[in-house]
Amino acid sequence: MINLRTDLALEASEIYKRYNTDMPAGVEMTTETKDGILITTVEVKDGEASQLLNKPVGKYITLEGKIIKELNPETTENLSYMLKDYINELTDLKDGDTVLVVGLGNWNITPDALGPQVVEGTMVTKHLIEYIPEHIDDNLRPVCAISPGVLGITGVESSDIVKGIARKINPALIIAVDALASGVPGRISTTIQLTNTGITPGSGVGNAREGLNQDTLGVPVIAIGVPTVVNALSIGVDSATKILDILLKNSEENSELSEKIKHYKNDDGTISGLLADEEKELIVTPKEIDNLISHIAKVISNGINLALHRDIGLEYIESFTF
Amino acid sequence: MINLRTDLALEASEIYKRYNTDMPAGVEMTTETKDGILITTVEVKDGEASQLLNKPVGKYITLEGKIIKELNPETTENLSYMLKDYINELTDLKDGDTVLVVGLGNWNITPDALGPQVVEGTMVTKHLIEYIPEHIDDNLRPVCAISPGVLGITGVESSDIVKGIARKINPALIIAVDALASGVPGRISTTIQLTNTGITPGSGVGNAREGLNQDTLGVPVIAIGVPTVVNALSIGVDSATKILDILLKNSEENSELSEKIKHYKNDDGTISGLLADEEKELIVTPKEIDNLISHIAKVISNGINLALHRDIGLEYIESFTF
Amino acid sequence: MINLRTDLALEASEIYKRYNTDMPAGVEMTTETKDGILITTVEVKDGEASQLLNKPVGKYITLEGKIIKELNPETTENLSYMLKDYINELTDLKDGDTVLVVGLGNWNITPDALGPQVVEGTMVTKHLIEYIPEHIDDNLRPVCAISPGVLGITGVESSDIVKGIARKINPALIIAVDALASGVPGRISTTIQLTNTGITPGSGVGNAREGLNQDTLGVPVIAIGVPTVVNALSIGVDSATKILDILLKNSEENSELSEKIKHYKNDDGTISGLLADEEKELIVTPKEIDNLISHIAKVISNGINLALHRDIGLEYIESFTF
Amino acid sequence: MINLRTDLALEASEIYKRYNTDMPAGVEMTTETKDGILITTVEVKDGEASQLLNKPVGKYITLEGKIIKELNPETTENLSYMLKDYINELTDLKDGDTVLVVGLGNWNITPDALGPQVVEGTMVTKHLIEYIPEHIDDNLRPVCAISPGVLGITGVESSDIVKGIARKINPALIIAVDALASGVPGRISTTIQLTNTGITPGSGVGNAREGLNQDTLGVPVIAIGVPTVVNALSIGVDSATKILDILLKNSEENSELSEKIKHYKNDDGTISGLLADEEKELIVTPKEIDNLISHIAKVISNGINLALHRDIGLEYIESFTF
Repeated sequence: MINLRTDLALEASEIYKRYNTDMPAGVEMTTETKDGILITTVEVKDGEASQLLNKPVGKYITLEGKIIKELNPETTENLSYMLKDYINELTDLKDGDTVLVVGLGNWNITPDALGPQVVEGTMVTKHLIEYIPEHIDDNLRPVCAISPGVLGITGVESSDIVKGIARKINPALIIAVDALASGVPGRISTTIQLTNTGITPGSGVGNAREGLNQDTLGVPVIAIGVPTVVNALSIGVDSATKILDILLKNSEENSELSEKIKHYKNDDGTISGLLADEEKELIVTPKEIDNLISHIAKVISNGINLALHRDIGLEYIESFTF
Repeated sequence: MINLRTDLALEASEIYKRYNTDMPAGVEMTTETKDGILITTVEVKDGEASQLLNKPVGKYITLEGKIIKELNPETTENLSYMLKDYINELTDLKDGDTVLVVGLGNWNITPDALGPQVVEGTMVTKHLIEYIPEHIDDNLRPVCAISPGVLGITGVESSDIVKGIARKINPALIIAVDALASGVPGRISTTIQLTNTGITPGSGVGNAREGLNQDTLGVPVIAIGVPTVVNALSIGVDSATKILDILLKNSEENSELSEKIKHYKNDDGTISGLLADEEKELIVTPKEIDNLISHIAKVISNGINLALHRDIGLEYIESFTF
Repeated sequence: MINLRTDLALEASEIYKRYNTDMPAGVEMTTETKDGILITTVEVKDGEASQLLNKPVGKYITLEGKIIKELNPETTENLSYMLKDYINELTDLKDGDTVLVVGLGNWNITPDALGPQVVEGTMVTKHLIEYIPEHIDDNLRPVCAISPGVLGITGVESSDIVKGIARKINPALIIAVDALASGVPGRISTTIQLTNTGITPGSGVGNAREGLNQDTLGVPVIAIGVPTVVNALSIGVDSATKILDILLKNSEENSELSEKIKHYKNDDGTISGLLADEEKELIVTPKEIDNLISHIAKVISNGINLALHRDIGLEYIESFTF
Repeated sequence: MINLRTDLALEASEIYKRYNTDMPAGVEMTTETKDGILITTVEVKDGEASQLLNKPVGKYITLEGKIIKELNPETTENLSYMLKDYINELTDLKDGDTVLVVGLGNWNITPDALGPQVVEGTMVTKHLIEYIPEHIDDNLRPVCAISPGVLGITGVESSDIVKGIARKINPALIIAVDALASGVPGRISTTIQLTNTGITPGSGVGNAREGLNQDTLGVPVIAIGVPTVVNALSIGVDSATKILDILLKNSEENSELSEKIKHYKNDDGTISGLLADEEKELIVTPKEIDNLISHIAKVISNGINLALHRDIGLEYIESFTF
């Protein structure tokens, strides 16, 4: 099986299904559609399912729809409130609990800058509640936010930076936001995944080596991510497989020809070898990725702000964060 | 023949050779190697050759080498002086002639920002020579530089902006710098093309609709470009063709199988249809494209500065442009 | 009289009044207050008045108020619609007339970046109406927008760049936006001036040497500006004058002391010599000037967009310009 | 005594001298000139001296010179090596000791962005030495670098962030870089202060509330700073004092007039009241502050890199950090 990196549990399930007839018993999947958005919930319930899908035990909620990247004002608003609801579904905060928002990724590389951009849109309130409580509305919760950078910038694992800070401020919840990799070009900036499993080793374009999750940090960690790139390898594998499928459809069943084609279709080594190693590392993005990232970062920071503070609207957020 | 867009005359020649045994009579090609850089000169000498390669009549000099993107200080210096020499080879300036440097492309989209970044590194001297000649060294020539933006930003064709400005300042030469598209991933930021044909309609990621060349501007136009992206389509076509080649090599000659494969290999419609239309428009770049662009923009502005002003070195440029 | 540079006609009037008892006959001034904003209209009606105030003949509308820099969402909205009304008052456009928006100033220097930031928020439509009219609403007018940079960046006078472009696209109106200098710190980002006199030589921090006005461009030019800096000289002169006033108030009338103080108060050479020449050139801004500029640039681009296109609202602008 | 904020020990000494005849016994001050740079070393030796100058006990080295802001390549090089020497004078590192470079200040506010810009130019090596030691030269020391942001951005004290990270990586030395405030306009970007006392509460435009020093962090802390702003108050006080001095010089000694002037000169309340409270908070900078900050940040990061790694030169740094 070609190791097409994906950070989406939904996609891991799809890939699994391609090679197997049934989903593992420990995986539960439900879908619904709301306001033009397809919402898929994947629950990985036990260790066996976790190993088969290569995703930690927990809940994964995926919002999908082309309208996510069109982002007219109405969709932006709907999506922001949907995110609010799903963040609330995954968390269990009490009034006054402190939350730390972490924006993972490299701010210098456009498709990896989602996390840092969400941090910029996050309403940071902890210092205001501490130093000038008399000027701060009661409905606001203490929130702090940090972009720890990446190993190549700081020389320190981002997980170490987050751990160090978490120890100083003792949050009740961490929300980590990161750009994701997908195997499907169409998912770039049209898909948002929320999960209560945190960030796991090796995933994300940020290349986090150690996880950010309840095990490593001692507090619940919600992760929110959006696919912003596809590896060139995915494109190559996809095209090669498709041309073989076309040949196969035009061949006599069980003929020598069809057997040969089937052989190559399953010969992962050959197929993934079509691209040179350095070509595999190339990233595929839409030309207008800068705009798409700003857009979707705004939606996510809106959703986080709405979920964390009581009774505020988008206009309040606008005037607070400008 | 699949329309794999390329802005490189060298690559247009390569593609032509794939489908034909001999190059057109009106094309002359020479190569040499210097300091680890392969230099190919393509001269398109007549209208027939121009039509066959889809490149205007003129001279194209291409510098290629992996060390271009490594850019250690020594290579940077060597390349800067090479560019100086080749710019001088393509131009014929007299002392005191005014030169206009034009940085084409969209500064908001990283792989398209090469031109604007070169403009930032260009030594702009025209106003100094006009207003404070007593403070300016005699060896400097009047140079001005502008990034006209792209149609989507200004609402105006960049060629119209350049024409309007050129009419006001009457330069003796225009040097236009632009990011190019290539069909070969390995050429991204390892290749620099210089040509005396200017920029031609439809080429460049900037999507210039009308050309910038001696015909449209009334002065000689040198164009300098670097491939910064490859279309996803190139990757897909490449992989599909390669897997068919592998199948072919493993088939009996002249068998039904080998004929079918050959049919599909030449069926451009099917092969270019493997990717959905919106997928074809995706761009493929290295992850670290931001750094690569800054790097190579520096080399090009160095080369331009060295070529335009007499007896200056890299240190002088550094202190002038900071 | 100390040459405290001001680009505001209102302030020129105030300074005139400090030294004279009556305003010139050819100056008409009216004020009104709306939504917490003080609106002063100064009309300079003849050449004599123009010379005395050092401002070209024409109409100057100034909006003032501390709430301009607070910029909560409601004020932003009110101000945007006010600007729309005053722009319309100064212009006389027919359906389909093309408008060119010009953002003067240096984008690399925060307090001078107002114009370029307004250009970024301007709805650019000319190319869409030309190339894809079937996808464009009928109520939109052809608008293009450009930031010509400053002499130090391009080597070319920004007026020459604007002239060159204007000649190519033949607009019916030019709207030029620029950061202004004021002599009163409290006016920084709390004041917006609109005028139908265009931009005049020597004014603006952009240091435009030649004017942008109906005389030089052949079409009406509306200028919109906001004070973003005060010269250090203003602070020094202000403090020195105030301490002399305090001394004077505490001196016996007509005493030797009071005469001496009066002498120094009117000794412009001494007072403006309190700061060294290089200190006079220092600029004074609020610490948070980055935010203030973004804010007010948004308000101005909103006002321009609302004025130029029929029947659009702020939400429409938001979805168009993102 | 008017509270003119200064972060320079040298300036604190100058202010002290204005009001007192002798320096405190516990202050030792020496000066020398090298390559056009005036180097002043102030040692605050005991608690009494510390209280009188309002600066912690320790050593302060100040480099001053107009050529610092001219920054031709030769000066840049000289200064970089000078900084190397003085950093080494203040530290005592063993081979292989880890160093953490901290860039204090707000990257969104130009005059406060010195620290973050120095971090960008710092050679970060810790991760390379850990993960790919075989590719790393032996002469490099493990260095990591972080810009913790400011309270208004993260909601967390920057000192808390630094403490959290320091606890995880256990550096042998911390180098903190920050923009400073001065009372003398001429010192802006012409002065560099190095000290072994770290950063103390209330100083710096970053408004750090808690110190970064050996007491709070448990490791030696070197602080490097450059004045980038002067408060408008300094300009006002300066001008008012100067005009009073002129009046005084032109008055008869011991006359009623001269007594009155002397009274006001020492009436700090009146003098500092000449500016409104909000005007006092305005900052005064050169117009080209963006360039000055980039320049001097480069010099400081050069000095730090040279001091921390054995046997490297500026060209090596250039190729490493690009």
